[in-house]
Amino acid sequence: MTSTSAERVAVLGTGLIGTSIAMASARVGCSVAGWDEDPSAIAAASQRAAVRIASTPEDAVTDADVVIVCTPVPAIAPLAARALASAPGAVVTDAGSIKEGVVLGVIDLAGPAGTARFIGGHPMGGSERSGPEHASPAVVDGIVWVLTPSEGADPAAVAMVEGWVERIGGRPVQMSAARHDRLVAFVSHLPQVASTALMALAATEEADEPEILLLAAGGFRDLTRLASSNPGLWSQILLANRNGIAAAIDLYSQRLADLRDMVLEGRGPEIEEMFASAKRARLRLATKPTVRAGVAVLQVQVPDRPGALAELTSTMAESSVNIEDLQIVHSPEGGRGAVHLTVAAASADDALRVLADRSFDPIRLA
Amino acid sequence: MTSTSAERVAVLGTGLIGTSIAMASARVGCSVAGWDEDPSAIAAASQRAAVRIASTPEDAVTDADVVIVCTPVPAIAPLAARALASAPGAVVTDAGSIKEGVVLGVIDLAGPAGTARFIGGHPMGGSERSGPEHASPAVVDGIVWVLTPSEGADPAAVAMVEGWVERIGGRPVQMSAARHDRLVAFVSHLPQVASTALMALAATEEADEPEILLLAAGGFRDLTRLASSNPGLWSQILLANRNGIAAAIDLYSQRLADLRDMVLEGRGPEIEEMFASAKRARLRLATKPTVRAGVAVLQVQVPDRPGALAELTSTMAESSVNIEDLQIVHSPEGGRGAVHLTVAAASADDALRVLADRSFDPIRLA
Repeated sequence: MTSTSAERVAVLGTGLIGTSIAMASARVGCSVAGWDEDPSAIAAASQRAAVRIASTPEDAVTDADVVIVCTPVPAIAPLAARALASAPGAVVTDAGSIKEGVVLGVIDLAGPAGTARFIGGHPMGGSERSGPEHASPAVVDGIVWVLTPSEGADPAAVAMVEGWVERIGGRPVQMSAARHDRLVAFVSHLPQVASTALMALAATEEADEPEILLLAAGGFRDLTRLASSNPGLWSQILLANRNGIAAAIDLYSQRLADLRDMVLEGRGPEIEEMFASAKRARLRLATKPTVRAGVAVLQVQVPDRPGALAELTSTMAESSVNIEDLQIVHSPEGGRGAVHLTVAAASADDALRVLADRSFDPIRLA
Repeated sequence: MTSTSAERVAVLGTGLIGTSIAMASARVGCSVAGWDEDPSAIAAASQRAAVRIASTPEDAVTDADVVIVCTPVPAIAPLAARALASAPGAVVTDAGSIKEGVVLGVIDLAGPAGTARFIGGHPMGGSERSGPEHASPAVVDGIVWVLTPSEGADPAAVAMVEGWVERIGGRPVQMSAARHDRLVAFVSHLPQVASTALMALAATEEADEPEILLLAAGGFRDLTRLASSNPGLWSQILLANRNGIAAAIDLYSQRLADLRDMVLEGRGPEIEEMFASAKRARLRLATKPTVRAGVAVLQVQVPDRPGALAELTSTMAESSVNIEDLQIVHSPEGGRGAVHLTVAAASADDALRVLADRSFDPIRLA
């Protein structure tokens, strides 16, 4: 460790997340060097951010305080090991969406330097977009950024990465790599699996029952929205966290089996209690970490015509109420729309008042 | 059958759906009589719609051409049987969300009259709201309205209900009661079960891992939105369709088990193919039956501040593009928002052009 504050940053892999991190770092005054195996990606990145174009990973990490590897998961460990070897004064981190395999891979290749100076990371943003041309420093703003230092990590290295993450706009959260992978299996990977399995099942049924999707209402749409995610990316993620995924699927299947038995055996009060307990938990879950302390969900009626949503959102804007989430419900079923608006709980009364003044007939659902 | 067109309608049970149907019937010139076991419900209904208040079900159905029973499922069969007995010239239908048990219950109580003149129905609208004070004829506009005539049903009775449903604004779709229940098990009940089970599992994990929901991103939120539904109502629905639910859960669990095995055994290409096939099916699923033939999904970037959505929706309104669906994505993860806009495919190029003109940086996802 030659520095305590990260002034010189190297980004290896300048896709959407790498370039966004480069831009967020440059925004706070860091000097940034970048490398990508694809010359057009690094050229595009250098047009978006003030990035020095390096010809090799070794060239990029020369003099860096922090190196971040932003490639697909399989390429992370070899690049991190090269960076650790070439830049003995640098802390190395990454942006991979699973952590245990990556951290073990780095230690395997780099030995004690991997344990001490590689601090696994997972900036929990994401986008359907890809490529440096869609990068933005806003990708980093306010996101939860998990750091997974090994037990033998250099405390100064951890502090440097943590300080840099905060400075460029992220919210660092420390936990072990194993715990990270276990938790994301439940809240990120399992929802994807549950959604894809439901859509795959309905698509199979549709072959025999062409009208099945005519009967699909808003709930089905909510549950299957994730099923349009990138197949190649998800196959890679699931395989990289296979034990975590399998454990989460097993626990989920057990819940489904419990509920199935309650239904078949007619145990109404138990079904109702399971539903009530899930409902309470869901209402505690808010839309953003920053407003998790309290949100309100309002339902309003809007006619299904151009301009109706514009009137609604303008009404909220005029009264300075920020819309945290907006969902059109029931439109699959006909020519009218109910809209669920999520706003900070502190804004709920203001929102209800102005919506009622404009005849949007609001009610508070939660 | 004394008439061929339904001019006189009786509504038994004047909650939200019953009162909405009464209003939609009155809108097209039908005379409407109503009854509810709760005197305040029928009083409220008569304030919303031009409904003659009846003191008993028998009083309500006198002279009716069509009787519709809009009570909770357990009360439907007894009331339908009373209506069939008191009004020998009327066709009787209902608005229950499951059909086979209801239809068999009516035939059990009413005999051949149940087979001939009871035509099960399921208007597939719905609302988180309840009570006649939130009723509106718009609840009926354009909704898919399943009718489940028995094999021995009087064709004139079927024609009368079908004609009336169309006239008041619904889109009648005929199928057997058993098929209805099987299909809604997949596209309505199973999504509810999948959502509640996922939320219940995460809530249990949260007891040991208080930070788990900090890592929950937009996907988890999508998947668990339904988990805040009414526990008592859902317990009733699941029990009324228990075999259909159990069969759907079994098939779903099998998909999950297949995917689990593919993951554990590292069968990447098979995982990718399952995800790709689900993705294709999801992209075929549009937001409304009327535009299902072709929609486009556009992604745009909007800053997370009051007024941003208003600018976006106003831009669409000015160019007369109707927004079929709008979803804010990624807001759980930070201070920015991407928005998915669904528009008719024919409007996609117009929408992309005006959005680009206003610097919303749109891309077409599907």
